[in-house]
Amino acid sequence: MNWKPDFSSEIPLYVQIKEFIKTKITLGEWSVGTKIPSQRALAALYNVNRSTVVTALHDLIAEGLLEGNTKGGTRVVNNSWNLLAAAPPPDWSSYVQAGTYYPNQPVIQNINRAEFQQGIVRLGTGELSEDLLPSEQMKSIFAGSSMNAFSLGYEEPKGNLYLRKQLADYLQGRGVSASPSNILIVSGSLQALQLISMGLLPRGSSILVEKPSYLYSVHVFQSNNIKLVGLPMDEQGVQTNLISRYKEGYHASLLYTIPTFHNPTGALMSEARRQELMRICTNEGLPIIEDDVYNELWFDTPPPLPLKARDPHALVLYLGSFSKTLSPGLRIGWVVAPEPVIDRLADIKMQSDYGSSSISQWAAAEWLQRGLYQEHLVSLRDQLKRRRDLTVQLLTTYFTGMAAWHVPAGGFYIWVEITVEIKMQVLFERALKAGILLNPGTIYHRQTGNYLRISYAYAKPDELEWGMAQLAALMKQLAGT
Amino acid sequence: MNWKPDFSSEIPLYVQIKEFIKTKITLGEWSVGTKIPSQRALAALYNVNRSTVVTALHDLIAEGLLEGNTKGGTRVVNNSWNLLAAAPPPDWSSYVQAGTYYPNQPVIQNINRAEFQQGIVRLGTGELSEDLLPSEQMKSIFAGSSMNAFSLGYEEPKGNLYLRKQLADYLQGRGVSASPSNILIVSGSLQALQLISMGLLPRGSSILVEKPSYLYSVHVFQSNNIKLVGLPMDEQGVQTNLISRYKEGYHASLLYTIPTFHNPTGALMSEARRQELMRICTNEGLPIIEDDVYNELWFDTPPPLPLKARDPHALVLYLGSFSKTLSPGLRIGWVVAPEPVIDRLADIKMQSDYGSSSISQWAAAEWLQRGLYQEHLVSLRDQLKRRRDLTVQLLTTYFTGMAAWHVPAGGFYIWVEITVEIKMQVLFERALKAGILLNPGTIYHRQTGNYLRISYAYAKPDELEWGMAQLAALMKQLAGT
Ligand SMILES: Cc1ncc(COP(=O)(O)O)c(C=O)c1O
Ligand SMILES: Cc1ncc(COP(=O)(O)O)c(C=O)c1O
Repeated sequence: MNWKPDFSSEIPLYVQIKEFIKTKITLGEWSVGTKIPSQRALAALYNVNRSTVVTALHDLIAEGLLEGNTKGGTRVVNNSWNLLAAAPPPDWSSYVQAGTYYPNQPVIQNINRAEFQQGIVRLGTGELSEDLLPSEQMKSIFAGSSMNAFSLGYEEPKGNLYLRKQLADYLQGRGVSASPSNILIVSGSLQALQLISMGLLPRGSSILVEKPSYLYSVHVFQSNNIKLVGLPMDEQGVQTNLISRYKEGYHASLLYTIPTFHNPTGALMSEARRQELMRICTNEGLPIIEDDVYNELWFDTPPPLPLKARDPHALVLYLGSFSKTLSPGLRIGWVVAPEPVIDRLADIKMQSDYGSSSISQWAAAEWLQRGLYQEHLVSLRDQLKRRRDLTVQLLTTYFTGMAAWHVPAGGFYIWVEITVEIKMQVLFERALKAGILLNPGTIYHRQTGNYLRISYAYAKPDELEWGMAQLAALMKQLAGT
Repeated sequence: MNWKPDFSSEIPLYVQIKEFIKTKITLGEWSVGTKIPSQRALAALYNVNRSTVVTALHDLIAEGLLEGNTKGGTRVVNNSWNLLAAAPPPDWSSYVQAGTYYPNQPVIQNINRAEFQQGIVRLGTGELSEDLLPSEQMKSIFAGSSMNAFSLGYEEPKGNLYLRKQLADYLQGRGVSASPSNILIVSGSLQALQLISMGLLPRGSSILVEKPSYLYSVHVFQSNNIKLVGLPMDEQGVQTNLISRYKEGYHASLLYTIPTFHNPTGALMSEARRQELMRICTNEGLPIIEDDVYNELWFDTPPPLPLKARDPHALVLYLGSFSKTLSPGLRIGWVVAPEPVIDRLADIKMQSDYGSSSISQWAAAEWLQRGLYQEHLVSLRDQLKRRRDLTVQLLTTYFTGMAAWHVPAGGFYIWVEITVEIKMQVLFERALKAGILLNPGTIYHRQTGNYLRISYAYAKPDELEWGMAQLAALMKQLAGT
């Protein structure tokens, strides 16, 4: 998308643009059925007035290549070759609607796109900011002489053995005992969820999840025709009193939980609640997916032991990741589970992508083996804690009387309830115009539309200060106070 | 699995083994329902006599932890905690059977496992051998100063832009024009197939494929309830005369083809056949997946232009990969397609694994940008050609009268028809015992059971010499000649 018209040329700008678009259509880059960008977007893209774009599109419509509709959308309806073909070319747009996988929610698609715009302050993004990622150390790992150890070939079905051994040792430190044969390396813990939904659950089954939950923001389970049944939460974590009834009523086959520094609420499940949850699930014979990707990011005291550390009956499938602590770009996560489960998931993984990047696996193992990971966590916790403190202070300064929140003991998120009357959709759009990207609560459950997930992990301190002040001002305006 | 009994200890070996297995069961590593390894396998694992294992298992059966059956399989039926629980613990084995994803064929599962045994000569493996992988250059890329460029964060939905630009330029060289917005980076081309099956095709549809085909050896499409309909091949590639009839009869929504150095047959689709195929598919409005991962591996002359290079109607989804040329462990492949298709697949990819390893993407881009990839291909072709020549010569020496084959003009494979009466299952097992791993033809279509896929890419020249001679001797034995 880097093409621009040649402003010094004698050929009129609109003709240049028309020819460029025609080429895109002829080459099939914009196939029949494609909705092309808006006039405004094209004008911005090509650095011209909107009227220039309008003229170019008008010609292409007249030539029968494009078709506009009253809502202002313009689609490709033809390409110059069409007349030669006996059958119409495939309408890819209809294929795109045919697949069984759910598309991302439109608000998430918007967010995904907006994230790559320049100069946007992202107040909700669930990632470490560039300056919290240990790029220098990563470079030194690759520059080191032990590079000899890493292989360019395909890896074993369960993943690189060296990494699995390192992980088995490392997890021992939080009371999780596993041997390498109980560990599957995945391309991020999201992939683990995908494999579980394809490999362990029949279509039409349902699983219990916290309400709200990260799981509502992706469609791994729903796309495999598995229903999510929400369980209410309180400050101690997920409530347990409905589990038995829901398990029965919905034939739930699993419970998915993020006990430690929950996404999006930041909640930490208490020791008592963990015990109770294990007791009930044991009684019910109800397996658990424990998604523990934020485990290491505590601020003052370590969290209670994972559920997996108290799991003699092998109820728990335990998920972890390097994404929230070291580098999401590595795309390395893991599952700890009984061997038949690991074997099954490994088999599907082999059929889906032949394993995770061997370079990434090697790098992750080196981080653990050299103790660099453990060192890095110490400083990361410290820096995240400062950002949390700053953000809480900004909330107190700007949002008192308009919002309510709890102070999280770790992780990335503050779950901010908006207590004044505001249309959240409008707030989202206004904020985006003002250069602020938000994660509205509706992403994480349709009933939590009056919440925002604020993340102190991504925006830099000065961005947090500017962004939170702007956001508060916007909210005041919209609430008419 | 590295534990061994302590041979110097006073505790009897069988007791040590019993206790070790008990711990695995108690920790849930071998959960209830797990089928444990055979007596023979355990004996090998622990370096003891089979009778020692039998005694240990006997005790565990008596204690009610294990249960044997008449077929000799032994399963975990209980763990020492069970009696405390009101409900039985989850039977993971039943979960494992419940998922919708097809397991790998047992013969492929066997192969996947055998591949990681020491000292096996692999005559069918579709990978470059370690000495054909450019490890030294890869190291130098990482050691270089431009490491600054690479990011540890999540990437854009379509993948790293720098890599997509490099690819757009590179593909121009084979007549495929694409801009970065028409390219999706995937974790190997297998993942592209997975995304297409989830994103573009409704459940219950069917696709046309060559018979035999790589696609029969994985279950990406079948697991999404999409049927494969086989089209016969000849020396020019896939036959076209049945396409219209099958499209109609089976409501086929796509044709999948590997026109260049086909897996498993090694066939190269001729120029005339390519033109004919495009003509028919254009007439039928039938889209095509062109899987072109072996494109660059020609020996004497480059192959005819890809189908995608003659695709004004945007019929073709074009797949490529670095796996067969540079490093399968990178896990980097790509799709070139019209924008609506790319957008849809990118959206699903974000929901499945948030993109491919950014380190891998960066490395791939550097290979292209510095021209190292292009240099590497020159020497790789040369080396592969020598191995092909050697293998053809070995076939001529040892297999004349027992088998028939064509000499491939590129790629990895010779598709060897066994012309004497032999039970292939027996040959496979005997060969494995003799230390030779084969890829039987039945993996690639149930009607090609009398073929072997011989690969000259993986085994080293001396292994090829030894392995092919052994194999011929075995076949002679089995054929009773
Ligand atoms: C609770 C939770 N699980 C899983 C993931 C997925 O992370 P990854 O696939 O990068 O490991 C996330 C990321 O947002 C998350 O918040
Ligand atoms: C024809 C063909 N397509 C795709 C693949 C998958 O390769 P990768 O996912 O490593 O790119 C293979 C590998 O065997 C293949 O032979």
